[in-house]
Amino acid sequence: MSLSPLPPGSTIGILGGGQLGRMLSQAAARLGFNVVILDPEENCPAGRVSQGQLVAAYDDATALTVLGRVAQAVTFEFENVPAASVERLVEGGATVSPGPKALAAAQDRVEEKTFLNGVGATTVDFVPVDSLDDLVAGLGKLGLPALLKTRREGYDGKGQVWVRAASEAADAWNAIGGRPAVLEARAAFVRELSVIAARGRDGSVAVYPLGENVHEGGVLRTTVAPAAVDAGTAARAVEIAEAILNGLDYVGVLGVELFDLGGGDLRVNEIAPRVHNTGHWTQDGCACDQFEQHIRAIAGWPLGPTTAHAKVEMTNLLGDEVEQWRELAAEPDARLHLYGKAEARPGRKMGHVNRVKPL
Amino acid sequence: MSLSPLPPGSTIGILGGGQLGRMLSQAAARLGFNVVILDPEENCPAGRVSQGQLVAAYDDATALTVLGRVAQAVTFEFENVPAASVERLVEGGATVSPGPKALAAAQDRVEEKTFLNGVGATTVDFVPVDSLDDLVAGLGKLGLPALLKTRREGYDGKGQVWVRAASEAADAWNAIGGRPAVLEARAAFVRELSVIAARGRDGSVAVYPLGENVHEGGVLRTTVAPAAVDAGTAARAVEIAEAILNGLDYVGVLGVELFDLGGGDLRVNEIAPRVHNTGHWTQDGCACDQFEQHIRAIAGWPLGPTTAHAKVEMTNLLGDEVEQWRELAAEPDARLHLYGKAEARPGRKMGHVNRVKPL
Repeated sequence: MSLSPLPPGSTIGILGGGQLGRMLSQAAARLGFNVVILDPEENCPAGRVSQGQLVAAYDDATALTVLGRVAQAVTFEFENVPAASVERLVEGGATVSPGPKALAAAQDRVEEKTFLNGVGATTVDFVPVDSLDDLVAGLGKLGLPALLKTRREGYDGKGQVWVRAASEAADAWNAIGGRPAVLEARAAFVRELSVIAARGRDGSVAVYPLGENVHEGGVLRTTVAPAAVDAGTAARAVEIAEAILNGLDYVGVLGVELFDLGGGDLRVNEIAPRVHNTGHWTQDGCACDQFEQHIRAIAGWPLGPTTAHAKVEMTNLLGDEVEQWRELAAEPDARLHLYGKAEARPGRKMGHVNRVKPL
Repeated sequence: MSLSPLPPGSTIGILGGGQLGRMLSQAAARLGFNVVILDPEENCPAGRVSQGQLVAAYDDATALTVLGRVAQAVTFEFENVPAASVERLVEGGATVSPGPKALAAAQDRVEEKTFLNGVGATTVDFVPVDSLDDLVAGLGKLGLPALLKTRREGYDGKGQVWVRAASEAADAWNAIGGRPAVLEARAAFVRELSVIAARGRDGSVAVYPLGENVHEGGVLRTTVAPAAVDAGTAARAVEIAEAILNGLDYVGVLGVELFDLGGGDLRVNEIAPRVHNTGHWTQDGCACDQFEQHIRAIAGWPLGPTTAHAKVEMTNLLGDEVEQWRELAAEPDARLHLYGKAEARPGRKMGHVNRVKPL
């Protein structure tokens, strides 16, 4: 991997053409890059703001070969990129960031938690579950209630179920399809925080102020940032982010969801090896937002500043909430970000609004 | 013209696919609009960040008919749009903003100055020049030196020549090709200012803080904004902007270049019926930049806020100055905006940098 920064005019490839790919593409264009999207959905949100789109599956060999040849740097908007796809891109000649190590850690919840605890980024207690017997034993060890999640895939509350009584074990096991899983102890958290951080090709790290998040039904509702935290909590979050980024030899922006147990005790809930919904506030709160930061990192540019110049409340617009655009457009301090999705299916992320206030 | 705002998912057409079209397109996409560019240059800067591009001349009847049908709102990035093209777009079904009145005023320097003085937006003294005799008479009336400009076209110092002695009259007349012209008295200005303002479909007006500009060889070099001005000067600039916007029944963003003669005495140099290079500072100094503001206006949305949250020094990157990207990328407070132009011809606007400082 060359350490010289990618010059403007180069092409960046992005796997995934949803809202994250769209906002990454816009940031890349501002820095003078051309962008090509790979996404099976024709005319996807990111494709409509990019130079080109390859309409193909994420494991389509031809499309991956083409993308690897036209793009000098490739990244992705979702963590379930097939490992074989990354290999083919690299064979095509592209640098893929974040790399295989980060993807592997993020694709399997047991590997993820094992890695995290190994670098001192403590998670809640957990046990791997490969059978109903494992689950019953795990409930005995971790206590009730506990959260059963598939090891792979699943997002926004999908592929997971709470087990509130030992008698529910079999139902829970069936509910997740009897697939390899992980059982997590309940975190007695006082609130949910997250930290968005980036690592450059040169190993430098930049960390944004913490955000405080509210989820509903497993889906992010709001982020308020910078979150009101004491110095110890802020320092601990930076320590956690640095440990993860360095441990994965990471290049790009990473999102870390945290449980705040109070008194500066933070536990990592999960990591996302990409720009993150809880970092959307940076678009209107920071000079260099998470999207530009990610592009800077994967292009081998110096990282940008991460200080906040405003306090932001980010609210997701889910499903038909996007119909509020008319009222939101009239709110002077509300900055609208809409994703251009045609169909407002219930719960679908259609856009977000950043309400901006002085610090 | 309907007064109901254009819903996200609608298509906006832009005539001209250079850097202004590119930044307008990105702003439109953030608000959920699709964008189609009309530009004769294939793969132009704006085309590469838009859903589509019609590669055709600005007076191509078929392309204009198509654009008028697919786009609910049409705007432009340059003022020399043929009047017949606007008519064809309107026939196709599109609303074109700013309208024909603004275009007519901006396309002819005599009409422009006559209009401006008529609404109280005072210019320097001038005389129309249709012959060498007119020019000689004009020099007698306005004194020396004086500036001879073609009535139509010309930008960035092109199509104009200073006349410093009566004996230069014939040469000057030949230099501009003996075309209909206007002779302007020299403005004894202490500095050049500009004001960027917008008017919505409902007649509401929003004015950004003044910028102080430095030109070199007729081309903008830097803008510093908000400019240090006394309350009287600021109020007079708002008065001028409002008079022009209302006088043209304008919809969209307008740039007004001003000569500051000192003591609150402002003279209008020229107006541009579009987003303006001296408004690029708003991208990093205001929550709602001039590009979003223009899209809001032409889409019939409420105008956004215009207060500055930072002090910005905008510097154009001309020709091979764009090669400074590597150093600029390493300046923490420098936000880079590159236009994706392949060829860095001397003097060509390749990008700009906004250096951001606390207010």
